[in-house]
Amino acid sequence: MKVPMTKLTVVSESLLREELLTLMRDAGATGFTVTTADGEGSRGVRATEWEGPNIRIETILSAELAEQILTQVAERYFDDYAVIAWLTEITVWRGKKFGA
Amino acid sequence: MKVPMTKLTVVSESLLREELLTLMRDAGATGFTVTTADGEGSRGVRATEWEGPNIRIETILSAELAEQILTQVAERYFDDYAVIAWLTEITVWRGKKFGA
Amino acid sequence: MKVPMTKLTVVSESLLREELLTLMRDAGATGFTVTTADGEGSRGVRATEWEGPNIRIETILSAELAEQILTQVAERYFDDYAVIAWLTEITVWRGKKFGA
Repeated sequence: MKVPMTKLTVVSESLLREELLTLMRDAGATGFTVTTADGEGSRGVRATEWEGPNIRIETILSAELAEQILTQVAERYFDDYAVIAWLTEITVWRGKKFGA
Repeated sequence: MKVPMTKLTVVSESLLREELLTLMRDAGATGFTVTTADGEGSRGVRATEWEGPNIRIETILSAELAEQILTQVAERYFDDYAVIAWLTEITVWRGKKFGA
Repeated sequence: MKVPMTKLTVVSESLLREELLTLMRDAGATGFTVTTADGEGSRGVRATEWEGPNIRIETILSAELAEQILTQVAERYFDDYAVIAWLTEITVWRGKKFGA
């Protein structure tokens, strides 16, 4: 059965990897895909931070939990770190991986 | 001309790469983007499998074909493998790459 | 505050990396995430080009700017290069990174 879910994507400096994963786990996220990415400049982002290797964390959540974690990430990191985050509406095949 | 299409994303253990690509090709998918990813735990996924390098396969399809392949992937792999799959509605510029 | 934005994704041969980033910057894009990807065949794409390492560029834009850049990329590259591009509607947390 296909059901709508929300994907949270966070692109950040590598040094925040464990901190971000811990924040997400503490909020209730249970599975992550992590890839390596490079960033290239952004208005309001310090260039020296953004130029190194970045990580991209993705996790699939309920809409409510995704918005909650997005807000936490924004409030905790956006002012001081090169962090970008967004939500995408997706469709998953409901299996045991995403709860009942 | 911009038209709506569906992107199917499958994140899986690397060992399923060829099998998944074959399943998708047989179903009618014709182009793929494959990236390397790391997974980090998921409810209902065996940790030992999920911790190694994963692959992320993306392919752009009609909504019907995307749902059909998602269903096949779910039915064939979700119970026994660390496989996650989802659909995203996207907009492409209609060119020869996506048929008439 | 959460607001809708559009993500433009371009997957291309590596050799077009700087050219594509320049096109996007000139059009008004200001931040990019670049990852390495592999492609695997596509109807209408020359196999020899598509088999090498590819890059995947993502940038978050207003809907208008995203469509404008997508059109430019399509018109300039789709006939002669192994370039795929698509738009995804996303939700971002409005911060200084995406303007007022």
